[in-house]
Amino acid sequence: MKFVRFSIEGNAQVYNGVMDGTCIRTYNGNPFESIELTQEQYPLDAVSLHSPVLPRTIIGIGKNFIAEGTPKPPIPELPIFFFKPLTTVIGPNDPILFPAHVTEAKFEAEVAVIIGKTAKNITPDQVSQYIFGCTIANDLAATQYFHHEGHWTVGKAFDTFCPLGPYIDTEFDYLNARISARLNGQQLQNDTMEHIITPIPEMISYISSFMTLMPGDVILTGTPAGSDFIRVGDVIECIVDGLGVLRNPVNKSEATT
Amino acid sequence: MKFVRFSIEGNAQVYNGVMDGTCIRTYNGNPFESIELTQEQYPLDAVSLHSPVLPRTIIGIGKNFIAEGTPKPPIPELPIFFFKPLTTVIGPNDPILFPAHVTEAKFEAEVAVIIGKTAKNITPDQVSQYIFGCTIANDLAATQYFHHEGHWTVGKAFDTFCPLGPYIDTEFDYLNARISARLNGQQLQNDTMEHIITPIPEMISYISSFMTLMPGDVILTGTPAGSDFIRVGDVIECIVDGLGVLRNPVNKSEATT
Repeated sequence: MKFVRFSIEGNAQVYNGVMDGTCIRTYNGNPFESIELTQEQYPLDAVSLHSPVLPRTIIGIGKNFIAEGTPKPPIPELPIFFFKPLTTVIGPNDPILFPAHVTEAKFEAEVAVIIGKTAKNITPDQVSQYIFGCTIANDLAATQYFHHEGHWTVGKAFDTFCPLGPYIDTEFDYLNARISARLNGQQLQNDTMEHIITPIPEMISYISSFMTLMPGDVILTGTPAGSDFIRVGDVIECIVDGLGVLRNPVNKSEATT
Repeated sequence: MKFVRFSIEGNAQVYNGVMDGTCIRTYNGNPFESIELTQEQYPLDAVSLHSPVLPRTIIGIGKNFIAEGTPKPPIPELPIFFFKPLTTVIGPNDPILFPAHVTEAKFEAEVAVIIGKTAKNITPDQVSQYIFGCTIANDLAATQYFHHEGHWTVGKAFDTFCPLGPYIDTEFDYLNARISARLNGQQLQNDTMEHIITPIPEMISYISSFMTLMPGDVILTGTPAGSDFIRVGDVIECIVDGLGVLRNPVNKSEATT
């Protein structure tokens, strides 16, 4: 099933829906427990899609893909992880906003895994039972705000720096995903999970060894080689075959208090 | 006012209350908007206090105090910040839980600031208007899980590694706080805001330059010199004069899936 969140022009309410081709049907209930489809339906081109999930926690892994032709290192004993705050989340077509002091930021097309059940101390073999589904993420970073002692916190945490969407597919084969990105129409990233260092089952098992994962938590699983910088006026598209296209323009933010 | 969250033995419900001396009165409403006290009251010694806030975001600052007698550096252009996930939050007297692979962790007694109003791009002078109140935090870290490239994420993120409490005081003078800690009764930290490097107004203004702060968000403002390691069997008390004592025992966690 393909889960979306959407709104209709002129109406501030955000609806939960299930997408079937170009038709969206609303549902009642909690997608992590059980849902009941309603009779209410909308054509896809009549709605605005939002981020398909409002996570409680977003955790990402760093430096997790090798470039084509590079020897693959062993899975690190301690991978690099980082958190992004919930204020980074935007949906498809929402503008990525650069404050005046940010002139460029790095885009990273990624598979985002959405947790479906509370998970603690799970083994890699158990991970698939705890995954609700997958969507696309663009893990943006203003790298000039990476701290010289290694902390990525600020650079990764700007408002709007985590586009998610367009939908969560509960059937997606994340072990064999192909990830690519287009900047202003030009392809920059294009690779498969063949070049991942810490595979998704091992990654989620590791996270669950230190923290409890909850339904709706989002795991950013790393980006292939080829990510580059975007600037105001660009349009960045992150693509995962089978998960659609996550497209966002880059705008200047209006300074507000 | 002193805001608490509490439960009563044999009843799973968590209540919101206001503490006046040794009496707690429940209230209706949202503390960040308006509340109405009820007639229901409980003696403090008949309740269990929980974390006084369930934050959406916890952000901390690193290396923010100098030791007595050390020259104070200028406020850094880019301070060290880190996030802790919400699964780290526990309340007063709740056990800090060490999984089998963690033998020791560093405690850090801190003033935790709770944001009261949505804040973006605020100046240091404006910060006080956006603060709801303060409580005590123990910002725990399993430093052996700090990544050698500088990332503190995993070490700071273990379940139970952010005790908060016992109450949020909306009148607290955080610019002149005295912070101390007692490990098994022995005093280890004891200092004032005199030795802070990035003061709280500048810190919160900086955070608001990259992310929107929301009501209930928690800012961990840094710990004075003298923090040390705790082990299973220890009792750690973090003290901020005027905010009470945040006491937590250290237990072994039962491995669970």
